[in-house]
Amino acid sequence: MRIGRIATPEGMTFCVIDDEGTTAKQIAGHPFEAPTYTGKEWPLSEVRLLAPMLPGKIVALGRNYADHVAEVFKKSAESLPPTIFIKPSTAVIGPGNAIKIPDFATKVEFEGEVAMVINRPCKNVKAEDWQDYVLGFTILNDVSSRDLQFADGQWARAKGIDTFAPMGPWIETDLSKFEFDNISIKAHLTQNGETTTPQDSNSNQMIKTFGEILEMITASMTLLPGDVVTTGSPAGTKEMFPGDFIEIEVPGIGKLGNPVERA
Amino acid sequence: MRIGRIATPEGMTFCVIDDEGTTAKQIAGHPFEAPTYTGKEWPLSEVRLLAPMLPGKIVALGRNYADHVAEVFKKSAESLPPTIFIKPSTAVIGPGNAIKIPDFATKVEFEGEVAMVINRPCKNVKAEDWQDYVLGFTILNDVSSRDLQFADGQWARAKGIDTFAPMGPWIETDLSKFEFDNISIKAHLTQNGETTTPQDSNSNQMIKTFGEILEMITASMTLLPGDVVTTGSPAGTKEMFPGDFIEIEVPGIGKLGNPVERA
Repeated sequence: MRIGRIATPEGMTFCVIDDEGTTAKQIAGHPFEAPTYTGKEWPLSEVRLLAPMLPGKIVALGRNYADHVAEVFKKSAESLPPTIFIKPSTAVIGPGNAIKIPDFATKVEFEGEVAMVINRPCKNVKAEDWQDYVLGFTILNDVSSRDLQFADGQWARAKGIDTFAPMGPWIETDLSKFEFDNISIKAHLTQNGETTTPQDSNSNQMIKTFGEILEMITASMTLLPGDVVTTGSPAGTKEMFPGDFIEIEVPGIGKLGNPVERA
Repeated sequence: MRIGRIATPEGMTFCVIDDEGTTAKQIAGHPFEAPTYTGKEWPLSEVRLLAPMLPGKIVALGRNYADHVAEVFKKSAESLPPTIFIKPSTAVIGPGNAIKIPDFATKVEFEGEVAMVINRPCKNVKAEDWQDYVLGFTILNDVSSRDLQFADGQWARAKGIDTFAPMGPWIETDLSKFEFDNISIKAHLTQNGETTTPQDSNSNQMIKTFGEILEMITASMTLLPGDVVTTGSPAGTKEMFPGDFIEIEVPGIGKLGNPVERA
């Protein structure tokens, strides 16, 4: 099931989107339990998809793909293990919203990632139980100013600028659709009218698995319903410029596309 | 005026605490505008003070005191400028609550800091206008596992563990009480029955001023009402152990005391 959030003339609401992606059916209350429907529905073409969740916090894993560690840090994944950082919720934008690059953020790159949306409070989760705490998967583009990231040392600013966390298009709650060690992640970048696919990797490159990530984070931090855990970017990240369009594609979830503009 | 949050038999509520610290008067609605009173009040001794705010995010400045940069990083502040990191709201505890140290978090130190509580949405704040966006000052103890901080590289985990953000005892909204370049910050540590004051510094050691911090952060990130910006720790941080009691004192705000326990 696909759970999304939409803006309608009557306001914002959670909804369930059909498999064809044509209709959004309003749900009553919150999306963390089996939905009940209000009876209202809209053609998806007549409403605007928002980020499917306003997270309390986004906890992100850095350096979780061996191929990406090699390309960005020029070191082996063994010498630089996965590390935790936080992206603020104020960075979240939805499908189609513009990534806006301020002047001081140079070398801004996309990072296509599979993200877990948390469905109930959790602490000290065991890796094998992870699915009990995950509402579903969505796509997160962990936009990063590579220059700020290295200049600051801490990544909160380079990855926390307003608009630097595109998320969506919805949450796929049926985890049984996925082979967790074989999820394709692609980024299609349109520059000067030409589209290439610089990121074309797979979750088989993950160093920590979904369950191991949740175990690692919740050993320290309580996660709450709506929190988002993003699992790291594979190799193939590339600089984006105003005028570009970046689309992250994860089969089984969908496509998350955003234009790039100057702030 | 002191704005706090208390737990009463009837639930949690914002309140105004009198200058003597004896009475808590309930306020109607939120604390971001001139308070109106419901008429209910409690002796402070009969209710429990909570963290004065549940922040959406805590944006923290690292390396903002020259004396602390030298002691922790063994480098000059010129070579390591202030940097931004984020502490999750799930780390917040109130006055008197226990800081709980998990086994894997070693060399856990206190860091006494003056924190700004934000009162309205803001972006691109100019340094000289900072007071327009600040509800008041509170105290934040930026508890940090020094070993994890250096091992992880990113500080989110070392400083983001549940209970690692004691905050309080309340928010002092009268900023005219302070000389901003002359605020005393002390930490009194009780170990084995003996109390010492290892941290005894002053905001005159700050590298970026309150206004410059708000300008730097809001050039990147929108801040929302209730967000907390903590301004960095001076020198004198020291390891804490289960059984200790740590009290941060900032004249003009008050004292924030917390026991230390094994998680």
